[in-house]
Amino acid sequence: MSAPDFFQQDHAAIEAGLEKLLPADSTPPASIHTAMRYSVFAGGKRIRPILCYESAKLFGADPAGAIPVGCALEFIHTYSLIHDDLPALDNDDLRRGKPTNHKVFGEAVAILAGDALLTLAFQTLANAAIEPARRVRVISEIASAAGTVNGMVGGQVADIEAEKKAADAAMLEYIHRSKTAALICGSIVAGAIAGGAGDEDVERLRRFGGQIGWAFQVVDDILDVSESSASLGKTAGKDQAQQKATYPALYGLEKSRAIAAELETKALRELDFYGERGTRLRQVAQFLVARRN
Amino acid sequence: MSAPDFFQQDHAAIEAGLEKLLPADSTPPASIHTAMRYSVFAGGKRIRPILCYESAKLFGADPAGAIPVGCALEFIHTYSLIHDDLPALDNDDLRRGKPTNHKVFGEAVAILAGDALLTLAFQTLANAAIEPARRVRVISEIASAAGTVNGMVGGQVADIEAEKKAADAAMLEYIHRSKTAALICGSIVAGAIAGGAGDEDVERLRRFGGQIGWAFQVVDDILDVSESSASLGKTAGKDQAQQKATYPALYGLEKSRAIAAELETKALRELDFYGERGTRLRQVAQFLVARRN
Repeated sequence: MSAPDFFQQDHAAIEAGLEKLLPADSTPPASIHTAMRYSVFAGGKRIRPILCYESAKLFGADPAGAIPVGCALEFIHTYSLIHDDLPALDNDDLRRGKPTNHKVFGEAVAILAGDALLTLAFQTLANAAIEPARRVRVISEIASAAGTVNGMVGGQVADIEAEKKAADAAMLEYIHRSKTAALICGSIVAGAIAGGAGDEDVERLRRFGGQIGWAFQVVDDILDVSESSASLGKTAGKDQAQQKATYPALYGLEKSRAIAAELETKALRELDFYGERGTRLRQVAQFLVARRN
Repeated sequence: MSAPDFFQQDHAAIEAGLEKLLPADSTPPASIHTAMRYSVFAGGKRIRPILCYESAKLFGADPAGAIPVGCALEFIHTYSLIHDDLPALDNDDLRRGKPTNHKVFGEAVAILAGDALLTLAFQTLANAAIEPARRVRVISEIASAAGTVNGMVGGQVADIEAEKKAADAAMLEYIHRSKTAALICGSIVAGAIAGGAGDEDVERLRRFGGQIGWAFQVVDDILDVSESSASLGKTAGKDQAQQKATYPALYGLEKSRAIAAELETKALRELDFYGERGTRLRQVAQFLVARRN
């Protein structure tokens, strides 16, 4: 399945935002800005910014305020990949078909580039053109989604702790919902808040986001088993080699596909409320589950 | 010189804030929260939170909103120490007289604990009881002070790049103002904004903070040469061993002391405007320059 047509348009708006927000390569100290840009512009699909932007457009007449929010989400996603790839963590040499950050710039700069992207994310959010009371809610939602309590860092820690142990269904769900679904859900919720959504809409999109984010990681597990490194742009079969807790490992491929499909169905049901207006978010969600890399 | 009497009272308010804001050791995943608490409660002097709190009190009838801001600053300071001590960076085994975070919890958890503290800092700021338009200004100031362009991470990168090179006066000033003074200045400015200061007061305190923060790092350089590891609670003489760019290395001890004293004088002059009200901030500043560890 190829990406919906509007992806390209959204993608261009986000690339322009990222370009504007990142200090130039030449800004001193040059090495850190070069390293930050290397990973941000390594060819990401910009899924989180697109979800954020399309979520904002459900509510906002002018969704421009959601572009910096989306860029901040991409900075956070990128920092997490840089740190995750470090020798002390997943020790990966390849990401999006290119050498990982520490392979190019060394470990010290890679650690600091991750720190810097996380910091820049919050600076970007603090300066976004969104009414201040909404802006602080957006920051709180995203920080929580990236944090330790049911958030991304918590999921990464649980993921490491679960290696080489037999994770049960509850632990597997916790890991996937925290390490991946939380930030995807946070992207959708932050977009809705930035776009001016009321509380009921925010909670409806939180349910949508939680389920589609969870499905996204189940699909990621499946692709690690079923696709090649060339197709993925990262080392395939790595989960099994590292004895990671995954859906295929616990349930097998067929059952894992059924779980992803069920989560997708539940997620899409939440969008029924919006009828035609929900078409784009629906298409993004369908793409996330049907993607091959 | 011992700390002013009110330090103990401020310190208690900050410790209570840190205790409340950090997830309990037992909150899953337990290992990350244990690691975060280990470094936050390793005996820091809480200089940044105290500066923030006392700065807010210059302006605010109720400075309670500045306590979480101070705690966020301490989280950021602590994350920077954890990452700085890593083998890929300064490779230090001892901090505040205790084994460094990665020595106790391993490198993977130490990297993630740093990431988590930085994230928690912004979550804390986003939820602080400060009027939203001021809250986003506080977040922007602190993120900028912790970032790459004239901020903390930028200073750390420049510091690494300057090792084993002969840094000139301009580079040395850039490193010290970025890696240390920026966050100290940011603490003072953020406190002022949280306390309700007007723009002229914010800029006056920015000048005060920039100079006292710079003096602080010059003193740090001097103590690394003149004090023992036991007195410092970290490895003494490390700057020279690592061929770091320092004031004593470039100017000698006597001239370095004169530079620190001159910066202190300039800083204190900014507080004259506040007369008696500025006494506490003046005492903190004097303590920072006269301290022995």
